[in-house]
Amino acid sequence: MEPCFLTAAEAASRIEGGSLTCEELVRSCIARIEARDATIKAWLYIDKAHAIATARELDKRPRKSPLHGLPFGVKDMIDTADMPTTYNSNCYWQHRPAKDAACVSVVRHSGAVILGKTDTVEFAAAGRKAATRNPYNLGHTPGGSSSGSGAAVGDCQVQLAFGTQTGGSHIRPASFNGIYGLKPTWGVVSREGAKQYSGTLDTIGWYGRSVADLRLVAGAFQIFDVERDEPVSCRGLKVALCKTPFWDKAEAGTHRAFALASERLTKAGALVSDLTLSPPFGGMYEAQTTVMFGEGRAAFLSEHLAHGPALHQDFTDRAMNSKGITPAQLVAAYDLAAACRKEFDSLFGDFDVVLTPASTGEAPQGLHTTGDQIFNAMWTLLHVPCLAIPCTFGAQGLPVGIQIVGPRFSDARLLRIAAAIAPVIDVESKAVTERAA
Amino acid sequence: MEPCFLTAAEAASRIEGGSLTCEELVRSCIARIEARDATIKAWLYIDKAHAIATARELDKRPRKSPLHGLPFGVKDMIDTADMPTTYNSNCYWQHRPAKDAACVSVVRHSGAVILGKTDTVEFAAAGRKAATRNPYNLGHTPGGSSSGSGAAVGDCQVQLAFGTQTGGSHIRPASFNGIYGLKPTWGVVSREGAKQYSGTLDTIGWYGRSVADLRLVAGAFQIFDVERDEPVSCRGLKVALCKTPFWDKAEAGTHRAFALASERLTKAGALVSDLTLSPPFGGMYEAQTTVMFGEGRAAFLSEHLAHGPALHQDFTDRAMNSKGITPAQLVAAYDLAAACRKEFDSLFGDFDVVLTPASTGEAPQGLHTTGDQIFNAMWTLLHVPCLAIPCTFGAQGLPVGIQIVGPRFSDARLLRIAAAIAPVIDVESKAVTERAA
Repeated sequence: MEPCFLTAAEAASRIEGGSLTCEELVRSCIARIEARDATIKAWLYIDKAHAIATARELDKRPRKSPLHGLPFGVKDMIDTADMPTTYNSNCYWQHRPAKDAACVSVVRHSGAVILGKTDTVEFAAAGRKAATRNPYNLGHTPGGSSSGSGAAVGDCQVQLAFGTQTGGSHIRPASFNGIYGLKPTWGVVSREGAKQYSGTLDTIGWYGRSVADLRLVAGAFQIFDVERDEPVSCRGLKVALCKTPFWDKAEAGTHRAFALASERLTKAGALVSDLTLSPPFGGMYEAQTTVMFGEGRAAFLSEHLAHGPALHQDFTDRAMNSKGITPAQLVAAYDLAAACRKEFDSLFGDFDVVLTPASTGEAPQGLHTTGDQIFNAMWTLLHVPCLAIPCTFGAQGLPVGIQIVGPRFSDARLLRIAAAIAPVIDVESKAVTERAA
Repeated sequence: MEPCFLTAAEAASRIEGGSLTCEELVRSCIARIEARDATIKAWLYIDKAHAIATARELDKRPRKSPLHGLPFGVKDMIDTADMPTTYNSNCYWQHRPAKDAACVSVVRHSGAVILGKTDTVEFAAAGRKAATRNPYNLGHTPGGSSSGSGAAVGDCQVQLAFGTQTGGSHIRPASFNGIYGLKPTWGVVSREGAKQYSGTLDTIGWYGRSVADLRLVAGAFQIFDVERDEPVSCRGLKVALCKTPFWDKAEAGTHRAFALASERLTKAGALVSDLTLSPPFGGMYEAQTTVMFGEGRAAFLSEHLAHGPALHQDFTDRAMNSKGITPAQLVAAYDLAAACRKEFDSLFGDFDVVLTPASTGEAPQGLHTTGDQIFNAMWTLLHVPCLAIPCTFGAQGLPVGIQIVGPRFSDARLLRIAAAIAPVIDVESKAVTERAA
């Protein structure tokens, strides 16, 4: 098997064992990108020579971290000191930050090889869409705004990549591209150097092709308690199925994924029950919209003043508060979110983990949309960790995942739970990957 | 009078009327800096030629904003594209960001002239102190972390300057330097391009030498409702005096300022009463510390990994969570803060504004300390707007201010209230300024 098809954890293990060099791995990913990028268009920038040179250097040095030599993609609204950062905006084609974003610095200093910058919805917010196509069907979106990162990992062009989520920009592309994704608890990963949209919502996450991949990166970020090893068993695990107040938006693919995940977990001995959230949670989708647009006003004011009509109208609209968000609406949204955060955390005496849709279903057709964030926005506003797991395929042959959710700061436990249940839930995508390889 | 001694609003009015050019104003500030900087040490970087050239250019262009031609200082943990940004850290002497921070971009595109970068506590957090001295007594601190901005405005070296507040870094220096300062509601000013410490707490504010100065800048940021003109009268204004749960930390200077402010307001016809906050507010100081250190862990991890032993131990301690902050403590602090925010806002049926200490008293002696944030930390965590007003002088001849506080997003109304009450409260510092001029 070509090294590009290995998961990050498999590749790390081979590098540690000496059966794979960092350079071989990076060259294999670059070869895959060269073969596929004209079709998938996941990347806005690649520096092949620099990546190979970095990998070669790493091969000479002692391995200090599990990320040593692993290729990493960076969503192009996250700053990199050695590559352009365009935010996929006409106003920033020439932009070269002087400093890595904090998250890039963390993985770079842990030995990751930054392969390049992945396409994104403009400023990870609105405006221009990514040119990226879904690797499972070129006529469909890979989701967004983390379009390029999701598709690049899904298409085995890179093992790991950063995405971000303000509404549903990280978990939804994971579902659409048949991959794993972690959106950590709000605040546990620094957002410094990533384009800001909403201080309350913006969260940096990462993609991989296994739970172990996600955990490698969580280790580099020294996520609370991630170093502790307390394996979880699927048998006896109390899983709460949460259809959310927005279940009427679920399409056939998500109906199928939800039913299959429940069935597979039950067969494996998990104790599966239904969770109905209390009525206030029904207001959380609207609250997330209020916060996103209310805070987007401040986020895009400087872009509006600096770029004027050269800036996409979507951002001028935000700066000018075209939705007319009022302070009273913002305060009500903040206070509702705070009450729901506390209530949601308190539910976890009765069960271990919440299982809930990751997207409305399969990736929609066309590149004019990146899909609906209805099954993601509430969780983002709740600040809770969300972990996407591939589950099945819909009628159009596109992947559909589910996500599991825990209380705030339970990221490490959520990774352990995912490690136990992913082999049970994710039985179809593995077959596809093996076929591809 | 030399133009440097004008307030921002006075200077703006003269520029508008044609009796003062931008170049004359900037040259006057530069002359003041040249005369005083060896003593006060407020600046880490000044580009005189660039500032004069910019002012000269502005004199040729139509005036589009009240900030047109006004000199502005920028705390040196806020990025500037045309000047270094050192964070006052040994690790960043050579750092030159590629892009202005959002706040710098907003005032620059509103016509402000960025004079230079002001000294700061390292990363506006800990580590190395600013070299800046208090203009009222060189043996005393100007406060921190916004040390240089506070002293430069207080010493009439610049009309306006940015500071930031995570604990008490903005309002405390205002009190110590006898100036006005606004810490807006959390989230209404973008923090993009300012060094991050705590996503929950970090807030960008500005200093001036009058309420009108603060309002000019608030206008540039299009703060909610700031364009509405509803003057407030001191007569009949319901002012709640809040000693806070931390009153035992108040020193003689603050006792004096508090009594004088109350007396002056009462004489002017305000309805002054006492406000005792409910017991949960007593936990807000500790909660702020928990949040600051808990989030500081993520904020400084990348610096720790990138710079190793070259980084000041204070930041390695934060990255390594040397205080042992637990997820449970963080969640409890978040939930307490959310409950107190809601309760505090609800109090404003009974009165119009809260008046509370801005500092423990006069600036302490020595440059090894920047003073105590005990009277600021709770308000920062509450996310409410705080506006510092000079009030009196303590036994050592140093200024002591008070602050007024409103509910979240009442920034515009707080500015109007300040405009009504500042002439009543701030009767001593004006005399000093006029003497200096």
